[in-house]
Amino acid sequence: MEDILIKSSTNSYKISIGESLRLQIKQFLNKEYSSVLIVTDEHVAALYLNDILENLPTDRVFQSIVPAGEKSKNLQSYYQLQTEAIEFGLDRQSLIIALGGGVVGDLAGFVAATYMRGIDYIQMPTTILAHDSSVGGKVAINHELGKNLIGNFYPPEAVIYDVDTLHSLSEREVRSGYAELIKEALIANENFFNTLLTVDIYNVSNRELQEHLQQGIKIKAAIVEADERELGVRKYLNLGHTLGHALEAELGYGTLTHGEAVAIGLLFSIHVSEDLFSVELPFEELLEWFRTNQYPIIGTNLDISALINKMKTDKKTLKSRIQMVLLEDVAKPVAKELDDTEIEHYLTSFESRLMAK
Amino acid sequence: MEDILIKSSTNSYKISIGESLRLQIKQFLNKEYSSVLIVTDEHVAALYLNDILENLPTDRVFQSIVPAGEKSKNLQSYYQLQTEAIEFGLDRQSLIIALGGGVVGDLAGFVAATYMRGIDYIQMPTTILAHDSSVGGKVAINHELGKNLIGNFYPPEAVIYDVDTLHSLSEREVRSGYAELIKEALIANENFFNTLLTVDIYNVSNRELQEHLQQGIKIKAAIVEADERELGVRKYLNLGHTLGHALEAELGYGTLTHGEAVAIGLLFSIHVSEDLFSVELPFEELLEWFRTNQYPIIGTNLDISALINKMKTDKKTLKSRIQMVLLEDVAKPVAKELDDTEIEHYLTSFESRLMAK
Ligand SMILES: NC(=O)c1ccc[n+]([C@@H]2O[C@H](COP(=O)([O-])OP(=O)(O)OC[C@H]3O[C@@H](n4cnc5c(N)ncnc54)[C@H](O)[C@@H]3O)[C@@H](O)[C@H]2O)c1
Ligand SMILES: NC(=O)c1ccc[n+]([C@@H]2O[C@H](COP(=O)([O-])OP(=O)(O)OC[C@H]3O[C@@H](n4cnc5c(N)ncnc54)[C@H](O)[C@@H]3O)[C@@H](O)[C@H]2O)c1
Ligand SMILES: [Zn+2]
Ligand SMILES: [Zn+2]
Repeated sequence: MEDILIKSSTNSYKISIGESLRLQIKQFLNKEYSSVLIVTDEHVAALYLNDILENLPTDRVFQSIVPAGEKSKNLQSYYQLQTEAIEFGLDRQSLIIALGGGVVGDLAGFVAATYMRGIDYIQMPTTILAHDSSVGGKVAINHELGKNLIGNFYPPEAVIYDVDTLHSLSEREVRSGYAELIKEALIANENFFNTLLTVDIYNVSNRELQEHLQQGIKIKAAIVEADERELGVRKYLNLGHTLGHALEAELGYGTLTHGEAVAIGLLFSIHVSEDLFSVELPFEELLEWFRTNQYPIIGTNLDISALINKMKTDKKTLKSRIQMVLLEDVAKPVAKELDDTEIEHYLTSFESRLMAK
Repeated sequence: MEDILIKSSTNSYKISIGESLRLQIKQFLNKEYSSVLIVTDEHVAALYLNDILENLPTDRVFQSIVPAGEKSKNLQSYYQLQTEAIEFGLDRQSLIIALGGGVVGDLAGFVAATYMRGIDYIQMPTTILAHDSSVGGKVAINHELGKNLIGNFYPPEAVIYDVDTLHSLSEREVRSGYAELIKEALIANENFFNTLLTVDIYNVSNRELQEHLQQGIKIKAAIVEADERELGVRKYLNLGHTLGHALEAELGYGTLTHGEAVAIGLLFSIHVSEDLFSVELPFEELLEWFRTNQYPIIGTNLDISALINKMKTDKKTLKSRIQMVLLEDVAKPVAKELDDTEIEHYLTSFESRLMAK
């Protein structure tokens, strides 16, 4: 087990990665809490909820189970959780545990951030993707008009990452999580990127997986420490997300997983970067790796003007132009604002490029 | 015009109190904002919205007008404002101006706190009561099960208090605001309290009113600086609010104004304090002053068990006991936890005491 420490503006918290951690939950509670609410989704509840329940010291433990999937990151689930928290009698000395993937983490984190103006919460990520979402304190729900538009920066008290729970993930979810690891590697670490390109993601050992998660989290942690509120470098973590988010919204949440959409977005960012900076980047290698690992790289038949509209309501928009993260080189990210017409041009050439392969 | 500076954990902001400030709004904008959304209610819009609109430098200015009254501090208005902000194209470099009383301030402040994970906002209070709500960064909406249960600590960029706007307040709203001034005086300044007891609140001069607001804000500012997140002394500001909030909820929001409910709560706190600490406090003087100034001091026919239930879902509840702020003396507040049975006992004797007068 290895720990990574993150200093935020309001606290400092530990990310613990290892095996069987869910059974040792007790040792991660640093305070005496008046009650504990575990928020999880139906899939994760069936698999791991009892492990947590059995290992918590207090008897004032409650559970709220939301439907699995992105659709739970909405206003209704949010309000429902607030209602349950009130009805269970949670007070300002209570704790929320977010047990699940990024959806549960973002949703339960935002409930914690706003329940009685903010109570403690702990992230217990159970997906590979959630190595990203559980670190850095971004919590949010979706608005009908766009993803993550309502939220807070609100760091957890701890992140407890039990890699044992990752074995029950579907291949789809493994893909989704590895896309964010690729993203982190592309932003900050060319060696890590090259290592990942040799990996068969459905056949990694526990040791390798743990190593990849640690690498990814370290990259994220360094960026988040440098820029908690996304005024500067933190926006690099949005590499691949401008198109990614637009695709998710346009195709209907759930059609692609978050990471699958980001995978396409990463390719698009590289595509734009190559042209704009006249550099050669590993577009072909990454595309091949995505295809080998069965990512659905749909880049044809896109409704380009609808996508552009979605990109404009994305948070990264500044004065109504579209902001993208691009790469001057691997591990050299840069933020750029583009016009509608430029984006349109690049989406068209991106489509052709994917079709040619 | 006098300025009071407040240092919060994340920024430091100025409270400017004076005449005609709404016409000088330009000089209070320290940054260049990509767009500005003014949130106000229908009453205030009719009176002062144009003054602001005419004096803002940018042309990307939008307005959202909510119905007047506590009922707008709910999830629906909150979401509606988020929708409008998105549709107007507000981005992370945009500003929200909360023009109105505590309802608009709390609601628009919470929208700002959570829109794209937090954008700048400015408080422009237009009620006497809002001298309290606009300072200190508490923002919130109500849950059906209790007041202010969903919110954040999120300081504004500035507070611009134009006392000219206070002349159009109804007597009811003047009463409501002066109750919070009484509260602040009781917590921290016996001289100020004695001064207030000589005041006819419907006939104060502009100079006197400004003086009272300044005194109140200074008390609040000192407390908030010492304890931004209400871990200690800030809870003293809840003097009168345990019963006050319960009364508002139980009678239905709007039956009593917030301050009117707090006025009854203040008397109740004094009543309990006198007995618990065997001290003599100005219960009779304050009751008389409230009555002279036409406060509706309804303390009879209370549904005591319903009130106790409401008090228990109030945020100040710790481990399901009821926390009250009491006074060992004027300007000597202390927090205490009481059992249901104690509260019941005191509510009964409080009823009798009020009936006897
Ligand atoms: N806050 C951030 O900084 C941040 C960063 C990246 C992504 N995100 C958010 O994360 C979300 C996506 O997260 P996700 O991909 O983890 O989605 P998810 O939480 O919906 O999990 C994906 C699926 O896997 C299931 N699952 C979870 N753990 C499992 C396990 N151990 N075994 C079997 N099944 C399991 C879930 O029930 C769900 O059906 C998106 O909403 C995205 O916006 C947030
Ligand atoms: N955030 C905090 O720290 C804090 C502190 C105290 C109170 N509050 C909240 O403040 C709210 C009450 O505030 P309020 O009493 O200002 O209520 P309010 O905002 O509803 O205003 C009261 C009424 O006066 C009208 N009005 C406002 N300004 C006017 C003007 N200049 N002329 C004529 N009419 C005007 C409004 O339209 C409304 O009808 C409550 O929701 C309470 O919870 C918050
Ligand atoms: Zn992502
Ligand atoms: Zn109040």
